[in-house]
Amino acid sequence: MAAEIIHPHTADTDDPIDPAFALHRGGKMEVRATVPVRDADELSLAYTPGVARVCTAIAEQPDLVHDYTWKSSTVAVVTDGTAVLGLGDIGPEASLPVMEGKAILFKQFGGVDAVPLALDCTDVDELVETVVRLAPSFGGINLEDISAPRCFEVERRLQDRLDIPVFHDDQHGTAIVTLAALWNAAKVTGREIGELRAVISGAGAAGVAIAKILLEAGIGDVAVCDRKGVVHEGRDDLTPVKRMAAELTNKARLTGTLADALDGADVFVGVSGGTVPEEAVARMAENCLIFAMANPTPEIHPEVAHRYAAVVATGRSDFPNQINNVLAFPGIFAGALQVRASRITEGMKLAAAQALAAVVEDELSPTRVIPSPFDERVAPAVTRAVAEAARREGVARR
Amino acid sequence: MAAEIIHPHTADTDDPIDPAFALHRGGKMEVRATVPVRDADELSLAYTPGVARVCTAIAEQPDLVHDYTWKSSTVAVVTDGTAVLGLGDIGPEASLPVMEGKAILFKQFGGVDAVPLALDCTDVDELVETVVRLAPSFGGINLEDISAPRCFEVERRLQDRLDIPVFHDDQHGTAIVTLAALWNAAKVTGREIGELRAVISGAGAAGVAIAKILLEAGIGDVAVCDRKGVVHEGRDDLTPVKRMAAELTNKARLTGTLADALDGADVFVGVSGGTVPEEAVARMAENCLIFAMANPTPEIHPEVAHRYAAVVATGRSDFPNQINNVLAFPGIFAGALQVRASRITEGMKLAAAQALAAVVEDELSPTRVIPSPFDERVAPAVTRAVAEAARREGVARR
Repeated sequence: MAAEIIHPHTADTDDPIDPAFALHRGGKMEVRATVPVRDADELSLAYTPGVARVCTAIAEQPDLVHDYTWKSSTVAVVTDGTAVLGLGDIGPEASLPVMEGKAILFKQFGGVDAVPLALDCTDVDELVETVVRLAPSFGGINLEDISAPRCFEVERRLQDRLDIPVFHDDQHGTAIVTLAALWNAAKVTGREIGELRAVISGAGAAGVAIAKILLEAGIGDVAVCDRKGVVHEGRDDLTPVKRMAAELTNKARLTGTLADALDGADVFVGVSGGTVPEEAVARMAENCLIFAMANPTPEIHPEVAHRYAAVVATGRSDFPNQINNVLAFPGIFAGALQVRASRITEGMKLAAAQALAAVVEDELSPTRVIPSPFDERVAPAVTRAVAEAARREGVARR
Repeated sequence: MAAEIIHPHTADTDDPIDPAFALHRGGKMEVRATVPVRDADELSLAYTPGVARVCTAIAEQPDLVHDYTWKSSTVAVVTDGTAVLGLGDIGPEASLPVMEGKAILFKQFGGVDAVPLALDCTDVDELVETVVRLAPSFGGINLEDISAPRCFEVERRLQDRLDIPVFHDDQHGTAIVTLAALWNAAKVTGREIGELRAVISGAGAAGVAIAKILLEAGIGDVAVCDRKGVVHEGRDDLTPVKRMAAELTNKARLTGTLADALDGADVFVGVSGGTVPEEAVARMAENCLIFAMANPTPEIHPEVAHRYAAVVATGRSDFPNQINNVLAFPGIFAGALQVRASRITEGMKLAAAQALAAVVEDELSPTRVIPSPFDERVAPAVTRAVAEAARREGVARR
């Protein structure tokens, strides 16, 4: 990839500058004051001596930190740079442009202030301790691009330790948007999700989370496949997380390859980055649903998929039905922060998926099972649904 | 103090709302995008897939992180909440309003993006490790309101571990502004700093740092006093830092109380919060200089000080000659970031003090030995001086 890069810093030719580099120069975000500090009077309110009265009040009544600081509108976007996009373990500094991008999407779509924090440690204990120590300044923690299986333990342990939401977007954001699209895809083809058998290609963070949310949503059956084929209880090479997946999924007791599992399957969900041969696609059930979400190269090219499937979705913006996490995470955190939720429960995730699916319920078609990322109805709908679900589930604190 | 607090959250009367609480509601700052993400094309540059090219370039050439992220304009304002203003150890959450205030002053006066990070740990090892892990996202670390003596070790160890500036503002910011004012106060009374004997009341972070910078600037003599009197080598109750101060200072080999030390002294610098009896002030040398910087109650009230002193300075905005750190830290970090300095050297601190003093050199008077915090000439002058000094001292990286 390096050979293709032309950027202002090293370019010494007349080649056109890559617009991505031009846009990234100096970063993509800034911090701004929301109060004036133009003269001594204003300074004496925003800073000493006035600020001391606010500090004292919070020391005496800790909940007031939510009222009188930016904590309740702010999340940390935390990564260790080990699983960045499709690039893998590129380290914290190189991951920063993605975290800044995520931060500006939080603001743009959810009104949430987000701070990119790319950490220089990869050990699970160190990651957990570091985020626990950071937490007082934030109303929520969005984990990002942390490789599996560490991401599962990091998230679980942080949520146990903290009283603010901890959400690994690569897992749950992807799962929520996938479920929303699948609900609508089932509907547009005249079925219920309970009638469908799904096969997921990819047993990493996203694959396992999608399997779990599909089960919660009542999918007929779902099998997860890794590079070696179907994840099933008979295998002796499974990580603890894949073992859990094997126990929860695959009622049909499939074994064998991904292609074997696809034989007669109603749904393909790709979060693997591999390629599925057309012969395997051809053996899927009639009216099948294909979500080939690898970026930039879908596991099944949409042209191929359309030969067999009733609904096709990808992760790309240049095809219909883009499965894009930005449809979920801004509203999820906005809703959780609004009611000061202590965590993001399964019920809140399902509510987010329902709200997202409902945005396009009156305009459903095979090329419109999920809203566009720029549909302005999305974030408010998800925010409201998540806030209501938090209240219902007893995790809201106001 | 609690009984005085009336704020919107708990007020149930018609009492006027404290304007400090009204101003703090919802916090004082926000994060904003500096690039557009209004449509799919813009999203594909600021986020996937365009961002991947920038990430790859940084992974291959790590220095590019300064060009293509907000790192090079951003500092972390790090505290553990143990020594907040005059309030003491109030914990991380309650310190957040101060850290947000600091962050908006960084932006307002220096154009520096600053992120408040109030950490939930106080152990030196834990603080150091946590900040080291956080550092990839930041171009500098401003330590704030960490109690002595831990603050000295935290700063030293962090600067050893990191290749970005680490600056404990309670020490060096205060010292720089004090030195600038003292240079001008000496000048306005027709003396050189080398003719002066100073006494510092307070042997914490600020007191020790002021003693050190005064020595670097060539003060005639300086003695530091803690609650037990002069810090001298004969005492067996000194912390390691006070022991170092005893070795460096007090050429006159004073012992005894603060009042004893003030007998015939030319300069009083108060960073203690105690009160100095008028009898002791009366024994200071003719034309003495009194910097009583405790807030809100100066160690010597300006009215009393003026009976004896040729120049009086305080930490308060309602008297002339306010010693305010905001005169230093924004420009210091702006200058250091501008040239990507790896650290803030003693030479850079002295250059900052010189630049700050020089701003008012043509308008010097006993009530004008230091510029107003709102003097717009200050930050550019300090920024330029610090950047030049960094280049001169070989710590600039561009």
